[in-house]
Amino acid sequence: MQPDPAALHAAAVRIMARCDELARYSSLATGIERVYLSPEHARVNRVAARWMREVGLDTWQDEAGNQCGHLPGRDPDAPSLLLGSHLDTVRDAGRFDGILGVLMAIEVVRALGPRWRTAPIGLDVVAFWDEEGARFGTALLGSSAMAGLWKPEWWDLTDEHGTTLRTAFHEFGLDPGRIGAAARPAHTLAGYLEAHIEQGPDLDRGNAPLGVVTSIASARRFAVTIEGEARHAGGTRYEDRRDALLGASEVALAVERLCRAQHHIVGTVGRLETFPGAVNVVPGEARLTVDLRGEHDDHRDRVWRDISTELDQIAGRRGLRWSATELHEAPAVWCDGLLQDVVRAGIEDTGARDVPTMFSRAGHDAMAIGAVTGVGMLFLRNPDGISHHPAESVSLADVETGLTALTATVEHLAREAA
Amino acid sequence: MQPDPAALHAAAVRIMARCDELARYSSLATGIERVYLSPEHARVNRVAARWMREVGLDTWQDEAGNQCGHLPGRDPDAPSLLLGSHLDTVRDAGRFDGILGVLMAIEVVRALGPRWRTAPIGLDVVAFWDEEGARFGTALLGSSAMAGLWKPEWWDLTDEHGTTLRTAFHEFGLDPGRIGAAARPAHTLAGYLEAHIEQGPDLDRGNAPLGVVTSIASARRFAVTIEGEARHAGGTRYEDRRDALLGASEVALAVERLCRAQHHIVGTVGRLETFPGAVNVVPGEARLTVDLRGEHDDHRDRVWRDISTELDQIAGRRGLRWSATELHEAPAVWCDGLLQDVVRAGIEDTGARDVPTMFSRAGHDAMAIGAVTGVGMLFLRNPDGISHHPAESVSLADVETGLTALTATVEHLAREAA
Repeated sequence: MQPDPAALHAAAVRIMARCDELARYSSLATGIERVYLSPEHARVNRVAARWMREVGLDTWQDEAGNQCGHLPGRDPDAPSLLLGSHLDTVRDAGRFDGILGVLMAIEVVRALGPRWRTAPIGLDVVAFWDEEGARFGTALLGSSAMAGLWKPEWWDLTDEHGTTLRTAFHEFGLDPGRIGAAARPAHTLAGYLEAHIEQGPDLDRGNAPLGVVTSIASARRFAVTIEGEARHAGGTRYEDRRDALLGASEVALAVERLCRAQHHIVGTVGRLETFPGAVNVVPGEARLTVDLRGEHDDHRDRVWRDISTELDQIAGRRGLRWSATELHEAPAVWCDGLLQDVVRAGIEDTGARDVPTMFSRAGHDAMAIGAVTGVGMLFLRNPDGISHHPAESVSLADVETGLTALTATVEHLAREAA
Repeated sequence: MQPDPAALHAAAVRIMARCDELARYSSLATGIERVYLSPEHARVNRVAARWMREVGLDTWQDEAGNQCGHLPGRDPDAPSLLLGSHLDTVRDAGRFDGILGVLMAIEVVRALGPRWRTAPIGLDVVAFWDEEGARFGTALLGSSAMAGLWKPEWWDLTDEHGTTLRTAFHEFGLDPGRIGAAARPAHTLAGYLEAHIEQGPDLDRGNAPLGVVTSIASARRFAVTIEGEARHAGGTRYEDRRDALLGASEVALAVERLCRAQHHIVGTVGRLETFPGAVNVVPGEARLTVDLRGEHDDHRDRVWRDISTELDQIAGRRGLRWSATELHEAPAVWCDGLLQDVVRAGIEDTGARDVPTMFSRAGHDAMAIGAVTGVGMLFLRNPDGISHHPAESVSLADVETGLTALTATVEHLAREAA
């Protein structure tokens, strides 16, 4: 069916306005931050639920805090196609990462809802929480719960204030004992489709508004602690120092060097802290995070082994000790072949030719959901590839084109399922 | 006069017990931290004032929050010899740095007080606050106020919670408008004497309990901000990154390399923070401190110029910007010749021969007070040179020997002044 150009334009304008509106729900006075199980989480879920009901979805918040909506097709027991993304953010975030995909999913339901009663499958929208892992260091918590991948040891993860995930569940009004009920069995799902800004510059450089994702990066995250000895900065000669920060600085530079030496691996030290952290004390301890992404699990693992070897050498040379805790591990996830095909067909319906295909260096909820159902992703052009930053952007025209493609993709899929 | 061995031993035991007692006044649940204008500052001043009054001193808290005590000699208008050190600490501090010198000064008054009515000069004890600069980044605040060196721009210094020094004064019950009254005119002072643990291993390695300080390090402290661009850790290729932490890591290593290349210069990056500081975001900003100490001002300044040049190069290579704010500058301070001689004579009175003389890499209140009166310092052996650390220590025997020497030094000075 040809989309109504006026309705489509109105939908894209509404999406942009709602991205602006959600940006106001933040724990920061200036800038955006919405973390898992925070007051902003509860408020934004209420807003998203209202928008979902407005397009005809039955709504509920699941046992992991994900906001869900369901529209049945002709058979209430048929599996559902899941459309969604996430509403949590990193600190000082942009306004589109995740949010855009949820709002586009709602607009797809608005466009197709009136005719969905005859569809062979149901249509669900999900707004995941804690894709980013900004509060507890472990990412994909909400989508892992839905995929049935929740790990009991996560209950003891703590945030920067020492609050455990278990306590945060109680404080938010969720029951940790019911987390299993958030899991969606595979037979209830007909696939997962997510639209997302690229978080990289490739579409922008190729002058293409949309791309098909072939796979999502293999990732590992570590918290590394380096211990030396805190001593007086003035009175302690260099030969008597065991400076944890100098060791950590060498590690940060080694992560860059070792990753650059490998094809398609990126590594980031995003956080580094020193203790006691006084201007006149030689740092006795440094804590840093290491985030590794690669197209292939084995390359990623080889780089971590190389980093570990380097840590041993640095620690030996400087009289330090080190230890690492793995915060997150996700194998590379390959998008479903059929879903790649229908996403491409949806993009071609917008008039595009030579549709770019790409591997996603960034992680996405699709990585977790991929454990229970086929996943497909549509990327939208992200000017300059700036993401996780207030300057993150996407154009109104690209959102309009993306919405056309996503709607067409869902229609193709409904036909395939018939 | 020969000291009474039993009284001397009792005094040393009391000093050690009081170091333990003061260690309980802390803002930390475990470990010691007492910063300027904190509740612990007020509480510890009350305790110190009680101990001062117990040995016959008239006490007051001055307009900068320093706890003072005065014992007149035969002429109430004669200048006073000032004995003291500081009661503030770094975070997770030891229990002797500064505290020991204040408690030893009180015991000197206890020993000499009964005979001081005939002395040609007065005897003052002062417990300074904010020698360390742990709260506002700028050190020697209390002693600078007493030396008349207070700078109006300090009122706008902020602590980690954004509280200005001005506000902290009000909250503590001090009037910023009266800070000038804390200044002691030069003609009211007959010199300043401070006993302190060495904060370095030289006396310990030389098997000497006590040493004479010849000069105190020239020091400069800077807060350096490095700005890059926060971007998504997965989606951003290395060639598109402007990673502030990698720049900061190179700077930390350059500070070490450039200082080691210079004789008698030590440089420390004690604090490094990343912003936004998320595991999956390329750091857009890094803030670090640089602390430089040297025996000579020109060597210290040359190293800072070399570090600045290195910062330019690193920033140019990585697409970063940098800026630095000077937090503290103190020229090398040479101890007064007469005071060095009497400190040596005092140490020789304990039976020591070949008394070590040494340059202090650590800063001390004597640096500020040196602007208005001659200063002298006595160092006590510090096992392994561990300071600014809970394992900081000094032996009871050395405290007893040090107290003998300090008391004898004051007696020598009183005779010189006669």
